[in-house]
Amino acid sequence: MATIVFPEHPSPVADAEALRKACQGWGTDEKAIISILGRRNAIQRKLIRQAYEDLYQEDLVKRLESELSGDFEKAVYRWVLDPEDRDAVLLHVAIKKTPVVDYRVIVEISSIQSPEELLAIKRAYQIRYKHSLEEDLAKHTTGDLRQFLVGLVSIYRYKGDEIDSRLANSEADILLNAIKEKAFNHEEIIRIITTRSKPQILATLNHYKDDHGSSITKHLRDEPSSDYVSAVRIAIRCISDHHKYYEKVIRQALNRPGTDEDSLTRVIVTRAEKDLKEIKELYHKRNSVALEHAVAKETSGHYEAFLLTLLGKQD
Amino acid sequence: MATIVFPEHPSPVADAEALRKACQGWGTDEKAIISILGRRNAIQRKLIRQAYEDLYQEDLVKRLESELSGDFEKAVYRWVLDPEDRDAVLLHVAIKKTPVVDYRVIVEISSIQSPEELLAIKRAYQIRYKHSLEEDLAKHTTGDLRQFLVGLVSIYRYKGDEIDSRLANSEADILLNAIKEKAFNHEEIIRIITTRSKPQILATLNHYKDDHGSSITKHLRDEPSSDYVSAVRIAIRCISDHHKYYEKVIRQALNRPGTDEDSLTRVIVTRAEKDLKEIKELYHKRNSVALEHAVAKETSGHYEAFLLTLLGKQD
Repeated sequence: MATIVFPEHPSPVADAEALRKACQGWGTDEKAIISILGRRNAIQRKLIRQAYEDLYQEDLVKRLESELSGDFEKAVYRWVLDPEDRDAVLLHVAIKKTPVVDYRVIVEISSIQSPEELLAIKRAYQIRYKHSLEEDLAKHTTGDLRQFLVGLVSIYRYKGDEIDSRLANSEADILLNAIKEKAFNHEEIIRIITTRSKPQILATLNHYKDDHGSSITKHLRDEPSSDYVSAVRIAIRCISDHHKYYEKVIRQALNRPGTDEDSLTRVIVTRAEKDLKEIKELYHKRNSVALEHAVAKETSGHYEAFLLTLLGKQD
Repeated sequence: MATIVFPEHPSPVADAEALRKACQGWGTDEKAIISILGRRNAIQRKLIRQAYEDLYQEDLVKRLESELSGDFEKAVYRWVLDPEDRDAVLLHVAIKKTPVVDYRVIVEISSIQSPEELLAIKRAYQIRYKHSLEEDLAKHTTGDLRQFLVGLVSIYRYKGDEIDSRLANSEADILLNAIKEKAFNHEEIIRIITTRSKPQILATLNHYKDDHGSSITKHLRDEPSSDYVSAVRIAIRCISDHHKYYEKVIRQALNRPGTDEDSLTRVIVTRAEKDLKEIKELYHKRNSVALEHAVAKETSGHYEAFLLTLLGKQD
């Protein structure tokens, strides 16, 4: 479930006018920006952007970028975009990262979003960057990591719930053999994780655990690490239980000395309208402290206020 | 341009009734079936199928399958389906072929259809077979051939016309080096052909020819052949000039002792509503004989009559 709180029928024109006012004159009224944008869902934000453009012949996103700064600006910028456009931006930033692409974000988005969402992201990426997501990613990677990541973003996965139990059994054995032979670049691992439907992969992972006493991610963790092996593990975790995965991303982001604001922002902004409530509950259970308190402790200022608003804080 | 001739507003109900009559009683009236279905476009055929189902609670496609036989049945079956559903069937048959998948058909469909058409085919495939096209194809292939074919069917290619000439230049060099090093399985060949936009690939191929005096397909032909190298060559030919490619498929199908009816049917049925006119003209130029005459010479009976109708023959 979502955490954000929003009114049913706010006026896009009134919102656009209030945002314009918040951006004009001496200084910027960040509080007003937070209390409007932090409490509007994706459709409402889209209508505000359109109303703003119609009223002032100016791009609201660009205006906000020029008014705000730092982590707060980044968070607002991510939030104000359409969800598929935001993911396209996140993927582009991840691909451009040097010396190695930020494969975590690439695996996360491509493994967690539904096939139709991933398709919408690819369309948004093409409109924005005049390239396909696949060609940019392939250009900036090599070897097994390329084959795995390009496979993940390319696949139009089957959405059905059917499970073929015999197939799951035989593919669990294929995975085990690939790991036993230390053939982590084994093309069969790539094939199974990048092409099978999610319910089918889950069935295979369960067979694996039942037959071999330990999960495949544990087996992979015992091995010398590489970006490729790490990417495979993240994909398996995202497909198995993405709430648990996100809880860990947030936990590590908050626990890191100096805080990893990029990851914190990414999870809160991308999940606030989807399932941040479940992630929050998991966080509370796992850490014996409410996520809001942990966020308040590790962040400050407008950035803190904005994240807390997305987490559902009322005035 | 299309070759089939069809009336503007035929009555789907009258067509369905006439088809029912053609299928009832002693024997089947194949001529009636040809003169109706062979002169209706995809939308009209869809409406006929719906009207037939409504009137008789029977699936027209299944009825036709049981009434007809041989190459004629196969051609009518292919023709009566929606285009994306037909391509899904063709791909499924190609994947199930043993001992090696029929990679020609897989390369042809995935390289020639537009990104949106390919997406519609993948959707139709999932509805029909409860699997993704990608997972079935990956399961039935291995090694370089798998990587290349799965890449081709997976990619959601960029549709824009922009060309980056410097990139084309540098990627032409990459291709040449891969071929010089006899590294045909070079992942860079797979990357460039499976992920770049078609205009960009064409620009790269032109640079290749300009700089190295010969086309890449010629260079590839001089080498020891494998299914993978052959698949790469077909993809390049399909992307470069698919009319020329289809002309050659038809020519070889007709020239083969005994005729390759499967290929002949496939090209005529899949292109009759699109660009069979251009392919016909190329054929005439290349072989100094009209395609209709060549088809009439190598085929017979209802199958011949049906193909000639799709080629635009009037009564």
